[in-house]
Amino acid sequence: MRIVRFSYKKSVYWGVWQNGKAEIVEGSIYTAFKKTKDYLDTSQIRLLPPAEPSKIILVGLNYKEHARELGMNIPHRPLFFLKPPSSLLAPGGYIIYPRSVRRLDYEAELALVIKRKARNISPSSAWRYILGYTCLNDITARDIQKREIQWTHAKSFDTFCPLGPWLETNLDTSNLAIRLYKNGRIRQASSTSDFIFTPQEIVSFVSSVMTLLPGDIISTGTPAGVGRLKAGDKVEVEIEGIGRLTNFVKKEQI
Amino acid sequence: MRIVRFSYKKSVYWGVWQNGKAEIVEGSIYTAFKKTKDYLDTSQIRLLPPAEPSKIILVGLNYKEHARELGMNIPHRPLFFLKPPSSLLAPGGYIIYPRSVRRLDYEAELALVIKRKARNISPSSAWRYILGYTCLNDITARDIQKREIQWTHAKSFDTFCPLGPWLETNLDTSNLAIRLYKNGRIRQASSTSDFIFTPQEIVSFVSSVMTLLPGDIISTGTPAGVGRLKAGDKVEVEIEGIGRLTNFVKKEQI
Repeated sequence: MRIVRFSYKKSVYWGVWQNGKAEIVEGSIYTAFKKTKDYLDTSQIRLLPPAEPSKIILVGLNYKEHARELGMNIPHRPLFFLKPPSSLLAPGGYIIYPRSVRRLDYEAELALVIKRKARNISPSSAWRYILGYTCLNDITARDIQKREIQWTHAKSFDTFCPLGPWLETNLDTSNLAIRLYKNGRIRQASSTSDFIFTPQEIVSFVSSVMTLLPGDIISTGTPAGVGRLKAGDKVEVEIEGIGRLTNFVKKEQI
Repeated sequence: MRIVRFSYKKSVYWGVWQNGKAEIVEGSIYTAFKKTKDYLDTSQIRLLPPAEPSKIILVGLNYKEHARELGMNIPHRPLFFLKPPSSLLAPGGYIIYPRSVRRLDYEAELALVIKRKARNISPSSAWRYILGYTCLNDITARDIQKREIQWTHAKSFDTFCPLGPWLETNLDTSNLAIRLYKNGRIRQASSTSDFIFTPQEIVSFVSSVMTLLPGDIISTGTPAGVGRLKAGDKVEVEIEGIGRLTNFVKKEQI
């Protein structure tokens, strides 16, 4: 099932996506909801990031090939950091290239959204705490990242966390193709079979540190081939079984 | 004025604190509220962290003496990182010493809470975006911080962000004594006159990266003298003109 979040006539809804239409649902997307048989067409709605997180957790260095490319050892445990919810960007939205940034990079990632409160859960039970999977683009000011000892500044600008286009609730994540397209050309191409830590292992590990809440986002790292963006670029993250998250880059106007 | 957030008979309220009593307020603490003349005594209520943030931003290395102590250069711009809202702890609450942690440290800090949406604001106008000031204890698993290249894991455990006891809305932060007591003995003692960046400069800088929202917390760094905690310890952050945030440490039980 594909779950979408969208705005329609200035209100926000959750819905189920099928055949290019969103069927509005009532109730809580996390616990129990029912379909209303109110269908809306693509042209009537604006997709929103399919999550309202209290926190966004991203894992660095989680593809074996990317670790080799960087000359790094395979880590013993997931390395994670946070992005603020204010960095979220909707499918189709503009990534703002800040005036203070010299080099802006894409990073294609598989992300998941938490379904229920989770603390100290095991990898084998993690699937019960995952609502669904989606695409995330971990936009990074690479010049700032290299200059600062913490990554927060480089990764926390508004619009630096495109997410979507929807949540896929039924997905075997053991071997999915993941690709990044810049202006239609493939720039990253890998498979989740190259993961160092599986999504289930990551959810378990993060839940040993902090309580995860419904709507929280966890992203699983980017494969080899990261590279830069400039104003005017179109950037797309595509994951097999989910779909394609498309965004555009424009200069900051002040 | 001192603004408190508290629970009373299983509901949560905001109030104004005076002479050991909380007067319940109606309306939004961020925009307009009125006092109700409903007074509650200390013994009837349980204080809560005086903020409901969408993000918690902390600045590292913001006291000149602490920078010298560490042999670091004075930074050109604030270095900041995030803690998740799930790490917040109420005044009087227990800091949980995780089983996976070998060394747990206190860090006394002056924090502020954002009053209204802020983006690209100047230091001179920052005061209009600050609701009030409070005490924050940036609890840190020092062994994990030293081992990992990002500080998130070390600083994000549940209960690692004690905040309170209330917000002081009228405060000149240019020269306030800040102290940390462990079991009644002073362990950190400094003044905000030693700040490298003022709270107003920090709010301005962070707002050049991300949109700040009402309730967001920004903490201004810790002075020299950080040190370790063990189970059974009582730890207090005291800031002149605000008051004292008291917490206790206990072992994680699983």
